[in-house]
Amino acid sequence: MEKPVIAVDAMGGDHAPGEIVKGAVEAVNAFGSRIVLVGRQEDIRSELQKYSYPQDHITIENASEVISTDESPTTAIRRKKDSSMVVGLNLVKQGQAAAFVSAGSTGALLTGATVIIGRIKGIERPALGTMLPTTKGYTFLLDSGANVDCKPAYLVQFAKMATIYVEHVVGKKAPKVGLVNIGSEKEKGDTLSKEAHELLEEVSEINFVGNTEPRDIPYGPVDIVVCDGFVGNVILKLAEGLSQALFGALKEEITKGPYVLAAAALRKPFGKLKRRFDSDEVGGAPFLGLKALVVKAHGSSKAKAIKNAIKQCETFVENDIVLKIQDQL
Amino acid sequence: MEKPVIAVDAMGGDHAPGEIVKGAVEAVNAFGSRIVLVGRQEDIRSELQKYSYPQDHITIENASEVISTDESPTTAIRRKKDSSMVVGLNLVKQGQAAAFVSAGSTGALLTGATVIIGRIKGIERPALGTMLPTTKGYTFLLDSGANVDCKPAYLVQFAKMATIYVEHVVGKKAPKVGLVNIGSEKEKGDTLSKEAHELLEEVSEINFVGNTEPRDIPYGPVDIVVCDGFVGNVILKLAEGLSQALFGALKEEITKGPYVLAAAALRKPFGKLKRRFDSDEVGGAPFLGLKALVVKAHGSSKAKAIKNAIKQCETFVENDIVLKIQDQL
Repeated sequence: MEKPVIAVDAMGGDHAPGEIVKGAVEAVNAFGSRIVLVGRQEDIRSELQKYSYPQDHITIENASEVISTDESPTTAIRRKKDSSMVVGLNLVKQGQAAAFVSAGSTGALLTGATVIIGRIKGIERPALGTMLPTTKGYTFLLDSGANVDCKPAYLVQFAKMATIYVEHVVGKKAPKVGLVNIGSEKEKGDTLSKEAHELLEEVSEINFVGNTEPRDIPYGPVDIVVCDGFVGNVILKLAEGLSQALFGALKEEITKGPYVLAAAALRKPFGKLKRRFDSDEVGGAPFLGLKALVVKAHGSSKAKAIKNAIKQCETFVENDIVLKIQDQL
Repeated sequence: MEKPVIAVDAMGGDHAPGEIVKGAVEAVNAFGSRIVLVGRQEDIRSELQKYSYPQDHITIENASEVISTDESPTTAIRRKKDSSMVVGLNLVKQGQAAAFVSAGSTGALLTGATVIIGRIKGIERPALGTMLPTTKGYTFLLDSGANVDCKPAYLVQFAKMATIYVEHVVGKKAPKVGLVNIGSEKEKGDTLSKEAHELLEEVSEINFVGNTEPRDIPYGPVDIVVCDGFVGNVILKLAEGLSQALFGALKEEITKGPYVLAAAALRKPFGKLKRRFDSDEVGGAPFLGLKALVVKAHGSSKAKAIKNAIKQCETFVENDIVLKIQDQL
């Protein structure tokens, strides 16, 4: 079967366009992907010249503008009609591409995707999912930051969408769903989590196992954790920051004086440990609940992350996830 | 000046009564503390016999019952009138002790303290503060779990109480206060944080520096972070869980095969790193906003943590913190 066309924002992220273009080429060479690179034609072309790949698998869609991370999302999407982000999202809207990957501004991408591609009818709030590293592998966190002030019913939709995504894209059957809460008992927590708990218990299509306490999340007791986007973003960003801070402090302690040699001998297992807690391995964050998939790749994405995000889009499209979400509303 | 009498729950926590009694003795010998140990007289007496210390510095208040962590807090406080916790809190209420330390059930302690000792008039919600380890030292987190569904005005009181506590007990002048939020700009976040931000800007008694993003918290950019107790508890417990998980994964990676020797050579810096992120060093979590100080020591507290919690109570009492909080309402 021919691969679906994936649009990729060549201008978004800290390492654009170099690493983005490189990731696209790697996807083409590894999976036979078909890609539209969106952005400044000249820049993209000069990057592409560095590589060899089947030429008919990559096309360029010119876009003269770039949305930066410090612009107001709403204003940027409204005004910069010829930005790589808006042009890329329009390719998906018009059916010229099946999904869109960008490592650019999260706010602009979520706003643009909702406005241009639009929600699946019946979905109250599209939500951003992130694969959170754990000692066992990964836990899918939804919502990780798209929606604050959630209502209990939103969390039920998050649980349903996450279940479909994890079953078919991650490939884990009947994934366990936990509700983030500050206590294991049903009656614990704030108003939102108490009410969401009640509702989640009644949903037959998901494998709801009750509350998951933040202390346990890093050990991966469940496949999916659902929560309000404020709490989800706190979890995601605190976990990233703390991992970095701890690895940094470790390095500081052992790369001085008498420990340098022993530390050097441990370079390999340290590297392995860092990779275990590295999000580059698993592609990007899917924005679920829209009429097509939009993936937010990390701002610091390098080629490997982009390549994996493209693969993730293909699996999503090939498994008709949008249709499956629609069917479960 | 004679030390204030501190009541200590000898029966609370994973290592009670042994480590609790030991911690009390260490405080007496190190600081000249005066202590009432509350709990089963026989058990306490047989522990005390192991040590030498000035006998007139420790008295025992008998209490026949113990509240366990799996009991309903409200029911336990109401029914177990002769528990070490209720008896200890009553000692404070009656003025026989100036503060109370317990490593027992958090829920029961917060409930009991609020009911028995009571709030300072004008304080809407007493809040639990925790010293969160960072790469620079510690950040004081308030509320770390006592109050969910907070109103913006509560967070302002948290910021004021935290400022007084950190100035006088921790000893940091004009401590920087950050509001936990998922973005650095004022207009970011959920309804609570947007409204709290507005209010905090207007408080002249505190050194409010704006939003603090969860990613930055582990690096200690501020001395105090304020937030709703649900979010605070997520931060506290996720940080604890993730640190443990990362240290565990590190150990797993380096204590096998060819790395054993190098790992052994690094035992000292690893230990130093663990201690940097160890909460035992800083006593317990103060429950602020009551007519007297109640300190929740970690359930896993050993002697050192209890000793430090006793010192913390003395500093609190000697600095008239309750009066200072009253004056700022």
